[in-house]
Amino acid sequence: MRKLNAQAIEDIATAAPILGTGGGGDPYVGKLMALQAIEDYGPVTLIDVDEVPDNALVVPSAMMGAPTVLVEKIPNGEEPFWAFELLKNYLGKDIYATISIEAGGLNSMIPLALAARLNLPVVDADGMGRAFPELQMVTFTLHGISSTPMSISDEKGNKMLLQTITNKWSERLARTATVEMGGSSMIAIYPMLGKQLKEGAVRGTMTLAESIGKAIREAGLRNENPLDKILEITHGYLLFKGKITDVQRRTMGGFARGNAFFDGIDEYKGKKLEIEFQNENLVARVDDNVVASVPDLISVLDPDTGKPITTEMLKYGYRGIVIGIPCNEQWRTEEGLKLVGPRYFGYDIDYVPIEERYEGVASK
Amino acid sequence: MRKLNAQAIEDIATAAPILGTGGGGDPYVGKLMALQAIEDYGPVTLIDVDEVPDNALVVPSAMMGAPTVLVEKIPNGEEPFWAFELLKNYLGKDIYATISIEAGGLNSMIPLALAARLNLPVVDADGMGRAFPELQMVTFTLHGISSTPMSISDEKGNKMLLQTITNKWSERLARTATVEMGGSSMIAIYPMLGKQLKEGAVRGTMTLAESIGKAIREAGLRNENPLDKILEITHGYLLFKGKITDVQRRTMGGFARGNAFFDGIDEYKGKKLEIEFQNENLVARVDDNVVASVPDLISVLDPDTGKPITTEMLKYGYRGIVIGIPCNEQWRTEEGLKLVGPRYFGYDIDYVPIEERYEGVASK
Repeated sequence: MRKLNAQAIEDIATAAPILGTGGGGDPYVGKLMALQAIEDYGPVTLIDVDEVPDNALVVPSAMMGAPTVLVEKIPNGEEPFWAFELLKNYLGKDIYATISIEAGGLNSMIPLALAARLNLPVVDADGMGRAFPELQMVTFTLHGISSTPMSISDEKGNKMLLQTITNKWSERLARTATVEMGGSSMIAIYPMLGKQLKEGAVRGTMTLAESIGKAIREAGLRNENPLDKILEITHGYLLFKGKITDVQRRTMGGFARGNAFFDGIDEYKGKKLEIEFQNENLVARVDDNVVASVPDLISVLDPDTGKPITTEMLKYGYRGIVIGIPCNEQWRTEEGLKLVGPRYFGYDIDYVPIEERYEGVASK
Repeated sequence: MRKLNAQAIEDIATAAPILGTGGGGDPYVGKLMALQAIEDYGPVTLIDVDEVPDNALVVPSAMMGAPTVLVEKIPNGEEPFWAFELLKNYLGKDIYATISIEAGGLNSMIPLALAARLNLPVVDADGMGRAFPELQMVTFTLHGISSTPMSISDEKGNKMLLQTITNKWSERLARTATVEMGGSSMIAIYPMLGKQLKEGAVRGTMTLAESIGKAIREAGLRNENPLDKILEITHGYLLFKGKITDVQRRTMGGFARGNAFFDGIDEYKGKKLEIEFQNENLVARVDDNVVASVPDLISVLDPDTGKPITTEMLKYGYRGIVIGIPCNEQWRTEEGLKLVGPRYFGYDIDYVPIEERYEGVASK
């Protein structure tokens, strides 16, 4: 158990989009919400998974929808609270703690803002160890934990409670509602007991994000490049250095989909890289060879500062360093790959862990 | 207060689509559900609006979606119960009675099936005095009664609770959910107190439907045509007699939309009539002159039996008698016409009460 102050929140917000693999929403709006909340209500307590009693209720809080939309449709600050309270009242039980559903920009911040306001601890964990575009794509699903009852709220004051037969049905029904609500919403979902959390969660996500963010900040102060440190902390791999030549994007069915194209620079001169994304970066190809794929993490960093460039920030002319990070082991099982492997996203490729792909590339 | 037996349910089911102005769902499936329920649980008690105590809770129960879909996607019989129970538990109060939200085929039957099973009375009234395609289109809206909390269930077991800022938002969110659920769902909506019911309801709908159905049945036994009797009971007008030459239909956004074209027979020979419908019949034109429009009722009857032909039964070659019936006075106010007048449905015509239109036609 420890307190997260404003500096910790800044560091987490800086690094979260790296784990969020480009998605999870713009951290900026979320960071402002979290900083304001700790200024109003005091610092947030971060607790370890093992500090949650087996029978205590933990409820993740998150933003749903296309982050592209949220840049223009700023939350009023109340709707995460509305969704959370609605679910709490429906369950009729006290909630012990909240937690991030994913390690993404906005979605690493929403639970902190909520926790400060409600004086609840935040668990140092999440349900993905990265970000994914659909609700059922959490390690909780692999452990048979139901996404419902879940609640949804929009910035206008509309609210919904769902009770579904599968987590995939939650995704379908909450997605259409979110689209109708204008493209983004706030949700409280996967209410679970401490016992279930201990089995299902990806541990240490907040601390990991904070340590990456701290490395970026400290390197900045020393005018150094934090890339090697980031790769060390994340056990990641350098995949490409390039300049963005084109970004195609479209908001479809509540998702920000698109492709980004890079021309190589420095040691990658003459090569081309393409990233396909659906809120998050899904597949990276160098000269048509897959170099990393979902569920492994693909992130784009600013070459000078090491700060992440989210999918909605990708822009013609930007330079970017593309890195790959091994995903949580839970995703590498048969069940895990069925839920979030490349074939689920419509790619006719087998998943090959990035460590193996990288060995292959490196030995060429 | 009186009991509705199997004969009463048959009569109501026969006539409900006349008041349902072609919509409200196929009465056949609903009738089977209601008959089965009274066989299992005994007859249903029908009570007058004034028999409901001012502080008692009344909750309408209905099917939502395109009736065209429901013909193939037969309810399992449980889902109206699921939606009702969910709302009841959420409200945490006893429900005194149920009621039809609209006078339509299936939607006059659903509350009867539910009432038998739950041993609740059904109020002899509804929220439209006809059928309309959208949730906010009830006289309750004119009296400031909120549609939410409302609940939705599908035949698979998915359930939802909505709390919205306007009744139109309930329509938007419940509609997208219903489309995602496969095109139809069951709902419990507009929970209200007896006091509110007394102000907002259209009274006597069940008794009216029953008396029309009885007239049709008795005329059949005597081998007579019930048309004159139907017009007498409903204060309706004969608009056309014809043969259907074409029906165009499409299921869009959760609605069954389309057009039916008639060539005149008998005294209407040489004339043509077109009906436009969106679940319900909305506008009738004879030789391009509007002869009746929403919110007045337009119904198509079998020329021999007087039984109604719903929009989903309209078919090339069928003969039909088209009648018009004055709507409830509440719809003829400025607020009423804003909610359900021809312009709301996209027609650039003023509403003229059918009595005036008919005088105009008759005097030509």
